[in-house]
Amino acid sequence: MDDPAKVFDKAARDLVEVGKNFYQRGWVLSTSGNFSAVFSEDPVCIAITPSGVEKGSMRPEEILAVGADGRTLNGEVRPSAETPLHLMLVRSKSARAVLHTHSVWSTFLSELHASESGLAIEGYEMLKGLSGVKTHKHVEWLPIIENSQEMSNHLELIVERELARHPAAHGFLLQGHGLYTWGTDLKEAKRHVEAFEFLLEVVGRRRMAGVPARQPDLV
Amino acid sequence: MDDPAKVFDKAARDLVEVGKNFYQRGWVLSTSGNFSAVFSEDPVCIAITPSGVEKGSMRPEEILAVGADGRTLNGEVRPSAETPLHLMLVRSKSARAVLHTHSVWSTFLSELHASESGLAIEGYEMLKGLSGVKTHKHVEWLPIIENSQEMSNHLELIVERELARHPAAHGFLLQGHGLYTWGTDLKEAKRHVEAFEFLLEVVGRRRMAGVPARQPDLV
Amino acid sequence: MDDPAKVFDKAARDLVEVGKNFYQRGWVLSTSGNFSAVFSEDPVCIAITPSGVEKGSMRPEEILAVGADGRTLNGEVRPSAETPLHLMLVRSKSARAVLHTHSVWSTFLSELHASESGLAIEGYEMLKGLSGVKTHKHVEWLPIIENSQEMSNHLELIVERELARHPAAHGFLLQGHGLYTWGTDLKEAKRHVEAFEFLLEVVGRRRMAGVPARQPDLV
Amino acid sequence: MDDPAKVFDKAARDLVEVGKNFYQRGWVLSTSGNFSAVFSEDPVCIAITPSGVEKGSMRPEEILAVGADGRTLNGEVRPSAETPLHLMLVRSKSARAVLHTHSVWSTFLSELHASESGLAIEGYEMLKGLSGVKTHKHVEWLPIIENSQEMSNHLELIVERELARHPAAHGFLLQGHGLYTWGTDLKEAKRHVEAFEFLLEVVGRRRMAGVPARQPDLV
Repeated sequence: MDDPAKVFDKAARDLVEVGKNFYQRGWVLSTSGNFSAVFSEDPVCIAITPSGVEKGSMRPEEILAVGADGRTLNGEVRPSAETPLHLMLVRSKSARAVLHTHSVWSTFLSELHASESGLAIEGYEMLKGLSGVKTHKHVEWLPIIENSQEMSNHLELIVERELARHPAAHGFLLQGHGLYTWGTDLKEAKRHVEAFEFLLEVVGRRRMAGVPARQPDLV
Repeated sequence: MDDPAKVFDKAARDLVEVGKNFYQRGWVLSTSGNFSAVFSEDPVCIAITPSGVEKGSMRPEEILAVGADGRTLNGEVRPSAETPLHLMLVRSKSARAVLHTHSVWSTFLSELHASESGLAIEGYEMLKGLSGVKTHKHVEWLPIIENSQEMSNHLELIVERELARHPAAHGFLLQGHGLYTWGTDLKEAKRHVEAFEFLLEVVGRRRMAGVPARQPDLV
Repeated sequence: MDDPAKVFDKAARDLVEVGKNFYQRGWVLSTSGNFSAVFSEDPVCIAITPSGVEKGSMRPEEILAVGADGRTLNGEVRPSAETPLHLMLVRSKSARAVLHTHSVWSTFLSELHASESGLAIEGYEMLKGLSGVKTHKHVEWLPIIENSQEMSNHLELIVERELARHPAAHGFLLQGHGLYTWGTDLKEAKRHVEAFEFLLEVVGRRRMAGVPARQPDLV
Repeated sequence: MDDPAKVFDKAARDLVEVGKNFYQRGWVLSTSGNFSAVFSEDPVCIAITPSGVEKGSMRPEEILAVGADGRTLNGEVRPSAETPLHLMLVRSKSARAVLHTHSVWSTFLSELHASESGLAIEGYEMLKGLSGVKTHKHVEWLPIIENSQEMSNHLELIVERELARHPAAHGFLLQGHGLYTWGTDLKEAKRHVEAFEFLLEVVGRRRMAGVPARQPDLV
């Protein structure tokens, strides 16, 4: 499987499957969400979902190939405005796949905890779904970053700086916008999405039951 | 695809698919919901779901063709009582597809905010799922209109007047009855349904968590 | 389709389909729920789901044929303990199909309102999913009946008496146990299940949001 | 079906089906959950899901065969760290199938009631989904056991001791980690999972509505 075209085709089909799965769960409604996977290392190229399409009914031929400079390699379709964010995570977090979901619970919590710039999650077995976490006593700090409309220019730099301050973080929330997480391959990134979405629902329901979430002073 | 019969057949099949999708999500339970799409421009004719059928298991041959005067072109089956509402939206909002869903969250919120005659939604990235919205800072005013049993006579006029007062609105709620939204084609209308249903769930959960929704004074 | 064996086979397949659908929605988890449909009028015979099976993966050959006296016609398998309840509804409500679901929301509300012996539902368009209801202003009184372990002996009589006091009711709740509704055919009964389950979720969420449900004094 | 290889193959396929079903319901997200079934009595051998795989997309050939001593019989893949827990339940509860799910509601409640070391569930018809329970008046005590990271060494002993104190229990919760239940075969164990998950959602929603769950003093 060294032929980049074949690796790209496989990545494209895998991203399509992820889209169907997440759409069914309600995590990428409307045209929300975007997904990418590295298919070439030298030079670095990513397969990434195009802008403005429904993620539950994509066809593999709609997936874009994009170089490290953010330019599309296989056509004239505009890549998602979030492409620089994906490329930054590939570069600075050694991510080989990046997944962005847009669920009700992540949106809900990203607003409630915006003023604390993040959310601490601790004490749940599901934390062990995150790479390298060996105990439920782990405290995962999930940074919350203000949403920005100039995503193509600056947001990736703001996120990069925030992640440099929290190097152990496995993801982050954009306020009112949802979750970004990544992995050493698409399988791991998907595992991270499911772990985070589960944890956010538990934390959200605690909040709705009037039980406060564990907060930053514990970190 | 200029043959009106073929365009109608395609529209009918697409409405059937929308029905399956929305039924699975619980947005058109029982025989609730109705959908239409324009299949001829001159004269204007719409494909529309019949009255009283389950939207999750329709067959394309059940879809009605209806002219601008509201009369059925392909059979004796009574079109839905909401047909004049669909035709008004085609006429006055240049809609080419109209979708009405009947979800728990839209019903819940249409009651809670009935006394304010609408609901302001602001600050969510998902707002960009609505046509022409470029920023999450957009304030979407979703009018709430009292439900009426004389739908075939007057409701479309009441709605038309209310939408004239809020020309930027992408949809409206009927109190205790659910969401109407539309688009320049069925794809866009479906994107709008998913964006609104998502936003209404987020707003509804905020309310249940005791966090007040942002209200009209912000508009 | 006058051959009773064929009518029975069709009814059995239809009950199996209803089981798959409701199981997927979480309305008949474990071995809960039971469904029946009349397949012969003279003498009256019903097709009914057997006791203790999973409703999501039944095969048509598992469905029992039962006579008006409650005896199984096609085998030695014990019919559900709820059989007399189904037969009573066929007899006294002229039901031609009876469906019992066991959802979270019906269980939740049947407990909260047990002391009032029922629940009034009013003001929702979805009420028009119930046979003969022409306006959302309709007040549906859903009786709540204490659960009984001697179901085969007395429960159907208790229910019959309660329904005689509320002849317009389209269904009832057994406390901590779920919903019974019926129709002039299986399609109508299914429409009633979906309408009630939707309405119960709306009423339940109102309650969780601290908005009181409309109560018996309105009846 | 006496050939152990065939019995194992059947068990493996059945565990894969359970995984698909539970994954769809959101009960085994990420790589959470694990399932086992006895396929040989003398010596006792179990088919068990491997560690760290997604439970919704397993293939039968990934399922491990493990002996009573916890060693894998069919390959070098590490069995789940929870294997000793499964084997203990086979031994001391005569379980022939053990299922562990990791749902939002079980996680939520296992935390809220941790200080009481368990949760009493009473008054629900769904309790009759548990083996041997004949009345909804049954009080099911669901022990909650502190999560432990040294699972392979000691957790099964702690659980065994706790279950000895509550011999009628049909399952238990690990704090922040989810549900374990079992049965005389896989079908019964699955029935128990669905009954418990349903009951936990009802109890959880009561709690969120501000209605206290019935507590140990009632037991």
